[in-house]
Formats: sequence, structure tokens, C-alpha cells
Amino acid sequence: MARRQDRLTVEDVNGAWAIIPTPAIETGDQWQTEDSVDYDEIARAVDGLIESGVDAIMSQGTFGEGATLTWEEKKKMMEVMVETSAGRVPIFVGVTTMNTRETIRQLRHARDIGADGTMLGLPMWQQIDVPAAVRFYQDVAEAVPEMAIAIYANPEAFKFDFPAPFWAQVANIPQVITCKYINIAQLHLHTMVSKKQIRFLPLEIDHADAAKMDPEFNTAFWSPLACTGPELTMHWRDSVREAAKTGDWSRPDELYPQMALALSSLFPPGGFAEFSKYNIQLEKARINAAGWMKAGPCRPPYMTAPEHYLEGAAKSGTGWAELNKKLLEGTL
Amino acid sequence: MARRQDRLTVEDVNGAWAIIPTPAIETGDQWQTEDSVDYDEIARAVDGLIESGVDAIMSQGTFGEGATLTWEEKKKMMEVMVETSAGRVPIFVGVTTMNTRETIRQLRHARDIGADGTMLGLPMWQQIDVPAAVRFYQDVAEAVPEMAIAIYANPEAFKFDFPAPFWAQVANIPQVITCKYINIAQLHLHTMVSKKQIRFLPLEIDHADAAKMDPEFNTAFWSPLACTGPELTMHWRDSVREAAKTGDWSRPDELYPQMALALSSLFPPGGFAEFSKYNIQLEKARINAAGWMKAGPCRPPYMTAPEHYLEGAAKSGTGWAELNKKLLEGTL
Amino acid sequence: MARRQDRLTVEDVNGAWAIIPTPAIETGDQWQTEDSVDYDEIARAVDGLIESGVDAIMSQGTFGEGATLTWEEKKKMMEVMVETSAGRVPIFVGVTTMNTRETIRQLRHARDIGADGTMLGLPMWQQIDVPAAVRFYQDVAEAVPEMAIAIYANPEAFKFDFPAPFWAQVANIPQVITCKYINIAQLHLHTMVSKKQIRFLPLEIDHADAAKMDPEFNTAFWSPLACTGPELTMHWRDSVREAAKTGDWSRPDELYPQMALALSSLFPPGGFAEFSKYNIQLEKARINAAGWMKAGPCRPPYMTAPEHYLEGAAKSGTGWAELNKKLLEGTL
Amino acid sequence: MARRQDRLTVEDVNGAWAIIPTPAIETGDQWQTEDSVDYDEIARAVDGLIESGVDAIMSQGTFGEGATLTWEEKKKMMEVMVETSAGRVPIFVGVTTMNTRETIRQLRHARDIGADGTMLGLPMWQQIDVPAAVRFYQDVAEAVPEMAIAIYANPEAFKFDFPAPFWAQVANIPQVITCKYINIAQLHLHTMVSKKQIRFLPLEIDHADAAKMDPEFNTAFWSPLACTGPELTMHWRDSVREAAKTGDWSRPDELYPQMALALSSLFPPGGFAEFSKYNIQLEKARINAAGWMKAGPCRPPYMTAPEHYLEGAAKSGTGWAELNKKLLEGTL
Repeated sequence: MARRQDRLTVEDVNGAWAIIPTPAIETGDQWQTEDSVDYDEIARAVDGLIESGVDAIMSQGTFGEGATLTWEEKKKMMEVMVETSAGRVPIFVGVTTMNTRETIRQLRHARDIGADGTMLGLPMWQQIDVPAAVRFYQDVAEAVPEMAIAIYANPEAFKFDFPAPFWAQVANIPQVITCKYINIAQLHLHTMVSKKQIRFLPLEIDHADAAKMDPEFNTAFWSPLACTGPELTMHWRDSVREAAKTGDWSRPDELYPQMALALSSLFPPGGFAEFSKYNIQLEKARINAAGWMKAGPCRPPYMTAPEHYLEGAAKSGTGWAELNKKLLEGTL
Repeated sequence: MARRQDRLTVEDVNGAWAIIPTPAIETGDQWQTEDSVDYDEIARAVDGLIESGVDAIMSQGTFGEGATLTWEEKKKMMEVMVETSAGRVPIFVGVTTMNTRETIRQLRHARDIGADGTMLGLPMWQQIDVPAAVRFYQDVAEAVPEMAIAIYANPEAFKFDFPAPFWAQVANIPQVITCKYINIAQLHLHTMVSKKQIRFLPLEIDHADAAKMDPEFNTAFWSPLACTGPELTMHWRDSVREAAKTGDWSRPDELYPQMALALSSLFPPGGFAEFSKYNIQLEKARINAAGWMKAGPCRPPYMTAPEHYLEGAAKSGTGWAELNKKLLEGTL
Repeated sequence: MARRQDRLTVEDVNGAWAIIPTPAIETGDQWQTEDSVDYDEIARAVDGLIESGVDAIMSQGTFGEGATLTWEEKKKMMEVMVETSAGRVPIFVGVTTMNTRETIRQLRHARDIGADGTMLGLPMWQQIDVPAAVRFYQDVAEAVPEMAIAIYANPEAFKFDFPAPFWAQVANIPQVITCKYINIAQLHLHTMVSKKQIRFLPLEIDHADAAKMDPEFNTAFWSPLACTGPELTMHWRDSVREAAKTGDWSRPDELYPQMALALSSLFPPGGFAEFSKYNIQLEKARINAAGWMKAGPCRPPYMTAPEHYLEGAAKSGTGWAELNKKLLEGTL
Repeated sequence: MARRQDRLTVEDVNGAWAIIPTPAIETGDQWQTEDSVDYDEIARAVDGLIESGVDAIMSQGTFGEGATLTWEEKKKMMEVMVETSAGRVPIFVGVTTMNTRETIRQLRHARDIGADGTMLGLPMWQQIDVPAAVRFYQDVAEAVPEMAIAIYANPEAFKFDFPAPFWAQVANIPQVITCKYINIAQLHLHTMVSKKQIRFLPLEIDHADAAKMDPEFNTAFWSPLACTGPELTMHWRDSVREAAKTGDWSRPDELYPQMALALSSLFPPGGFAEFSKYNIQLEKARINAAGWMKAGPCRPPYMTAPEHYLEGAAKSGTGWAELNKKLLEGTL
């Protein structure tokens, strides 16, 4: 058992929290396939990311295909992640399901095999209201108190807009220490109402902007890009950390437009709402094109996307890979 | 094993297809409860409905709490339904899950215990597109060809608006014979593009209007009201059947406004969208208030609703019960 | 002055209520053009429709470009419509604006020149609530009591979903006699709550279905198709009228699939919501392609649409023209 | 004529751009009222704000009731604003209408009386697409080249989400120099794609956060709060300006939570979407409660709101007034 003695706290949330896909074997897009997971690739990626210096690893969210894995697959994947990490970095697994009891059941297993926490979204049949959403996280925390919780605040997937009153209340749950967060517009407000008991993880590209808002507190971000070659993610983290100390933001300001340009082709016309319809397919196309990790095909039923969307995503992956290459060559 | 020899066809879809809740024991709203289902009440309700004359029974959809049952509970409930019916009416169980493979796994079990078909919605993490939605039903039908499929066309729960091109394509899947349908505005169009291979089940209250549009084909409806006392549902079905033969619609036209009035308080201000946020809670409040079936509390996380919404729902239940009483007294 | 002595009532709402575009001269899509309207074409079309037998004419709604005409243009167009009709059929003009007082000002002018009523939508800056929407129609009716009102119930344009409580209340305004209506799913309910004080005009294609629901009351529809050649619209109206009398719906049932097929290419993938983004452009492309009326270009800012959407719309127009040709040849 | 010789540029956009309501006389909520505007109060407020030090004044947007003024009223109000300012600060008037030509007509008048620019939103009948939205601003700029444009980027009112490709294109229009902006999540990206040709005005409360992101460029904000007593707005502007120079953000960081707390009751449960349904009514209730300016009643049809929403808004107004009082007493 590699898990730490004590539950993680908000103080433990810093730097790059990498998210990885669940790599699939060649027939992973067939319903007939019983075990679709490429476990060797998971082990290789987790080890590679840790060696590169990421601060934590999360999975089984959206492009981690938490929704389309069987429980047997998810269980084995968790185990490979925990064993490979061997306590070197926190491992957060995804146990978002259709109800409270099933989430608790899965989370208890994650605890038993030594995971550190869960990236956890809401059941998504109804459009839930604030009291029920708060109660959900309270119930899970009460049932499995040993596990830290990173709230997965995705409004498209979970039909919930995660407003200020929600954050004010879940901040009182000691297990809730961080949040995979999408829109920094209310980052300041939500940090305030949660009394700094939750360190929100902004989008990788927004890390410098968030750090400028509060250099001491906004020290972490979630990274979907580390698994397309971790070098730039590490350099970005370190450049922002340095700038937060010195007050000289010239290096992050130099990197931002190049990162934004590479990412722009990931989003189809129609923006985030349209992207959300195909996010699994596009993220895996991006990762596959970059070449650092073999994400493989997507699992049923979320397997296809319009061809030109996939091309944009692939271009975004190769664009990022080029930035990494430039960085290694010293020309970025 | 009570299942019929042959798979049901569109010809077998007629009359009142009753939907039942999954009754809960007193502690059914606690996450700590391992088995929350009141199986005796299921057996009693299924038998009572069949004795009253309903034409089929479905469950484990929205207010059947398909989302919040554990697999163990769902499995046992299916068995009780199938055993109680003992082949008297078709039994359709709900196996909507987060992905294709899990749905197939559950549906195979339903087949093995003798269920006739499934009321089946879409995985709901992404907002799925038409090709992927069609492929989902094709995959399930290919994997478990013995089972009939009633598509569960709920746009709020499944983030999909079930447009004409979808119906044109799923009509080619022989297993797809019917559909739990909400909005009759496109009933004629959807029946046309599906070449009458699918008999859509309109809302109970819309049954006469649908039958007027096409008296020979539109012969069935889904009934959430049979389980608040089946008499009026049976009388409504028979009155419409008679009118479709004779062309004299005076009896259905007399019943409609009284039914509509009783139902109106079920919907909070904000209409169907607002209702959908609390549909489980409101439907169970309605059923509990009517008194024919003991639906019990709701399962986590969908347990609470604004107090005045619940009052409206209860009023709707007692209002319907009064209509039933009047009917039995001969004063309706 | 051609206007009737007395305000129209719900009894006067029957048959085909044709809607016409506001034809534009060649430079009508330029902001520099001061008067963009082809008044001769209006006179020709109004006369032609009346000669063909339509029951009323409405304009200045969505594809009538009520939003993008200048007040001077709209005023002159109203005058041409009223003068050409010369009392032969009711003329309903559009005075939807951004506020109550401007609508009243325009409606008073319409009254003064002899129009019979208005097809009137809601101010659309805010998403209005039910009490304010009811009050709007009350205020307009109080200010210009001589004019009949056809409520323009377009949920996309006006950000309002026109629920049952709205209809229950506006039914008490004597001026409100009809409604351009889109979704027949709640036609029965809305007719009931409005106590038959409002005769709803369903989509042309839904006319037979609505008439089947209530052959005596549902006797009218709004027609966007008369201006692509009025013959089929007249034949459709008459066939439904005959069927409503005899109970033999075979002729309408024969026409429906052919009409539905011709219309299907008008709607882009994405359905009604996507269509609404380009409805002016697509309707004018449809009308121009059919050739009966010269609708001309669209006015700024709603001038362009994706090329393949426009092609679908044009195909829909020529398809309808072919149905008309077949009808005249006796082969439909 | 007080207007400057030359059109304003992006360099001229700095500090607090105050937005004022259009004050109404006591009967301003009656449709019978022909001139509803309290012109003396406008003159008093404009003069008071300029004396207090605001950097520009805008009006006739949402709570400026641009939608519900008659053209005669709007014209006179523009004149009072321009005459009162007498060239001391830029005056931006609202000419958002239902189409391109009417906006041009109104803007030409604004130019002729000496206004400096316009806060301009999109026609709102259709949900416009990016090419048409860009074309709209191009046409207006071409027609009235002397006037500067502040794009009014309100996604709820105008049904448009103002994505990055839009900003990349309108940045090429020299007249477009600023933007009333709501969501800072994409402020960095939009500033980048517009190549710093547009200085976006974030929400007043977000001014410090935006300034931290880019202290040299993000130097301005729009202020709905100056008209509830301008002292705190001025102090906030100056504190952020000082912090941007020294790098010591302690004073803004001290003010933020108190400002956020006072504002929180302005927003009803349901957040920004629900607020947008009643924003005029709530903003005027807020301003009236604060007492610095007499906004008066709201004009038809947007006059009422749920009572507890109005109470929250009023509380927000008095809360802000208390902050102003504390500031003057030296205890903030």
C-alpha cells in the first residue's frame, strides 16, 4: 500500500496536476471487447510524468473515459496507477457515477488499494440543485472520510453551474481540497466564498493569469497537456512560479500567445459548447497526434466526430509537440 | 421462465403501457441503506395493474429510479416483475447506463431472467450526435437480439432532441418497436419517417389527440397514472378505442379537461424544464398522495424539492384519486 | 378606408392565413438603400393571393422582415396591403418593436390607414415573464381597442415559451382572437385553457392533424407556402375542410407525406433551433426559388447563411413548385 | 458643439467608465406617458459624476433603458448628456436597435449633436452568426466614421456569445476601441486576438483582477456603481492604479471582499441567467435604494420583478451606500 498516512489538505495542492486518458487497445472501440485498456501504456505514462516532475496525476474524468470503462477495467487501471506511482505523487481516480451509493462503493475500493483522492463530478440524470449537490459531496465524504476530493466542476457534463453558494457550503467539508475548474471569471469570488479552503485548479493556459490575481494562493493548475509531452508544462509551471516570486512576468507573457495559438485549433466553430459534444474524441485525437502517449481509439458510444473537428484537434497536438521540441532545442 | 417464444413486434404495442416507480423502504433515502427496495410492494402493484387490465409494464426509467438503484437492487426488482407477471403482459426493464457495454451486460441479464424488452435511454455524459445515437441502439440490438426495445426519448435527461433523421434510421432496427414519447408535435412526422415500424407512446393525456390523428395506428400510450389507481387509465383507453371505431369522440372530449385540470398542479411555474429538475421527487409525491401504491422516499442524490412544488404534486395525486372515485361512483 | 366596421372576432378566423415576405429591390441588402421595398410586387402578390382564395394576409413578422424595415418603409407597405385588399380579406400587419409605447404608436397608424389587426410578438431585450407578457398585450389592446390581435408565439425570436398560464390570461382580452403558433403538442391544452376564445393557427403542414383533434374548432392555419404558389395551399385547406365534414381523411393523408418531403430540405441539420438562426434568409431563398413571388435579397443585418443551408431551402421551394404543377396537371 | 476634433482611440480608454440609468418621472411606468424622462436628474447626475472624477459616461444600454425609450426621449437625453458634459469627458450613447439602418440613422444624430461614441449592441431578432455580427459593426463604422464604438458584449440580451474569431475581426475596425465586457475568463485571449486594438472594460468588481493580469494594458472598467455614490468607485480606480505601479495590491485586496459582499444580494438564486430576466428592474431598485440618483420607475414592458428579488437589489444598494459612508468617514 503506497498511500500516505494522512489525508491530503489544501496545502498539498500545488503545481501541475496532470490528467491522463485511459489508453485503449486497437479494438477498444468495439462493444465486443471485454478488456479494452492498455495497462502497459498507463504504467509507462504515469512513470514518465512523475519522472518529468508533475505534482499529481488524475484520471477517469471526461477524456479519461470514466463514463465508458467497465468497473473491472476501472478497478485495474486504478491499481496500475497507484502501484506505478508508489507514493511518489498523489493519485486521484474518477468515481463519478449515476448515484451516491455507487460512487461510495467505487470510492471505498479506491481507498482500499491506496489511492489518495478522487476527481468527482455529480450524478447527471437530473439537473441537480444546490442543496442536493452539496449533500452529495457531504454524503460521499462522510462515507469515505479517508479520501481527498477534487470536485470536477464541468457544467456541460453535469448540468450544474457550480455557483458561489455551492462553494461556500462545500468549503466546510474537510475532504474537499481542490477543484478541476474551467472558467476563471469567478475564480476570485469562489476562492473568497470558500475562505481559501479549496485551491481551484484553473485551465493550464490560464495558470499565469490566475497566479497574477493571487500569486501566493493560486499556485496550481490542471494539465491536459502534460501527456502530450511534459516538458512545456513543467517549464510553464516553473516560469509562473518564478514570476510569482520576482514579479517579472515577461517569460510567461512570452509563452502565453504561442500556447494559445497551438491550442486554438482544438476548438471547433461553436466554441466550448460544441467542443463539449466531442471532447473525448478530440482530446484523444490531440494526444495521439502529439505522439508522447498512445491514447488509442475511443470507447462506445463516444467514438466519432466530424472529420474537420478531428483534424483541428490533431493539428493542436502536433503544434504542441513542436513547442516542446523548440523548448528542448532552446528556441522557444 | 415466463418469456414468450418470439420477440415482440410493433403489432404487439397497444393500449396502456403502465410505468411504475421502484418503491422504497422507509430508509430508502439513506446512502447507508444497502437494499432499499420494497419488493412486496412491487409484486402487489404489478399484479394489481395486470388484474386491472394494463397492457404492459415498464420501469427503471426516471421515476422508476433506474439511475439511483444499485445493480443488485435492479436485478432483484426485474426478477420480481417478471415472476409476478408470469407471461401475462410484456415486462420492459430499464438498462440505461453510462455506456454501451454496461447496458449490454445488464440487458443480457434481463434477457436471461425472462424480461420481454427494455425501455432504453442514451448514455448522458456527452451531448451525443445522431450517428452515435443510432449506433448505440444498433450495437445493443446486435448484442442482445432477443430483446425488444422501447426507446426512452427524454430530451432533458439525455441531452438529445431525437430528431426526424434519428427515427428514420432506428426504424431499420427490428428490435426497436416503440418509444416512450413526450411531445406529440412531431408524432405524425416521426411516424411517417419511421415508416410505421415504431409505434410511439404519447403521454397518457395526449392519447385521444394522437388517436384522432391516426385512429388505426396510434393505439397505445404510456401511463404514469395507472399506478395512482388504474380505473381511469383503463376507462380512458377503452373510451378512446371505442371512439376510434365509431368516430364519436364525445366521451374522450368530456374526460380530457378533467384529467388536464387534475394534472396541472403537478407542473411548477417554469413548466417542463423546471419539472424535469425534480421529476422523480414530484412523481413519487404524486403517487404517494394518491394512495394506491406506496412509492416511499427517493434515493440519493435526488431526494428533495421545493416544498410548494411537492404540495402541487401531492394535490395532483389526490385530484386524480378523486377522479377515480367519481368514476367508480358513476359520476364522472 | 377599406376597414370593416367592427373588430374581427374568433369566429372570423378560418382557413388559410397567408404570410408574405416584404419583397426587396435589387439593392435591398445595402445599408445605403433608403427605400428597399418593391411595392409593385406586394400589390401583385396580395391581389394574386386574394384571387386564389386565401382567407387573410399577414406580414412584417420574421421573414416579412418586420425587424429590418425602416418605419417609413413599413408604413408604406401597410398602406399598399390595405389598399390592394380593399376589404376583401383581413389584413394583419406587424408592429413588434422593442417596447410597448413604440408598438402602440405604430399600431395606431395601422388602425388609421384601415388595417384589421396585427400579428404581434413581444419586445425581446429581456426574457420576459408571464405577468409582464400578459400586461404587454393588455396595454396594447387598451391603447388601440379597435384592432384585432394575432399573438405571434415564436419562442426563439422572443425568448418566451408561451405557457398555459399565459394563454389562460390573454384569453380575457377581447382583441386577442388568434395566434401564429408553432408547436401543436399543447394545442389542445392551450385551446382549453383559453376557453376557445383564441383560435390557434398551427403550421400549414400540421393543419390536418390539428383538424383531426377538433374538426369543428381547429379550422384555420398560417401559411408560409401560399406565396410559393397558392394552389396547393388552397387544395390542402379544402381537402381538410371536406374531410372534417365527412370523416374521410384519405385525401389529406395522401397529401401529407408529399408536402412533408418537399419541406424537409428547408431545415438544416440541427433542426428548428439552427433553422431559427437563418429563418429570414432561408424562407426568402425558398420563395425566390419557387418563382411565384419575387422576394428579392434580405435586409441588413440578416443577409447571409451557409451555402448548403441556402441550397436546401431553394430545393424546398422548387419541390413545392413541382407539387403545385402536379396538382394543376391532375397528377398529385 | 462640445465634441472633440478627433475620434477617440484605444489610448483614450482609461479609468472608470460610468453607466447611468435614464431617470423616469413618477408616471414613467405608464404607457400613456409621452415623455417619461427626468432631464434635470440626468443633468445633475452627469455633472456630479464628472465633478467626482469619472473618466467617461455611457447610457441607453440595458438599465439605461435604451430599449424602452421613444426616439424623441432618447434624442433629448443624448442632448442633455452632451451639453452637460461640455467636452469634459467622453459621452457614449446607446443606439442599439432592431437593424443596421435604424442604428445608423440614430448614430448620425448622435454625431450631429456632438456625442463622442456609442455603446452598441447587436440587433436581436435572430441569433446572429459571426460573419453577420462583424459585418454589422463594419457597416455602422463605414456609415458614421466619426464616432467611436464601444461594443456592448451582452450575450443574454443579444443571443450572441462574442467568441475569439469575432474579436480578431472587429479589431480591424478603427472605430472599435473598447467593449463593455462581462466575463473576464477570456479577457487575456480576447485582448491577444484583438492585438490590443480594443481595451475591454471588465466589470467594476473585476477591475483589480484584470489589472493584475496586465497592469499596463488593463487600465479601465465599466462602472454601474458610480451612480450609487461615486466615491468608492473613484477610490477603487485609484487604488488599483497605484497598486499597478507599486506592485503592492494590499489595498485592492482589502476592498474586494467588502465590495463583493455588498453586491452579492443583487443576484437572485439562479445567478446571472435569472438576473438577466430582471436586470433593468433590479438595477433601478438598487440605484433608487442607494439614494445618490433618482432613477424612478421602469418603463413598459419591463416594470416588475419578484418582490424578494427587488428586496435583494435594494439591500445591495444600501450596502454600497454604507461602504461609501465608511470610506468618507475613513473607516473602510
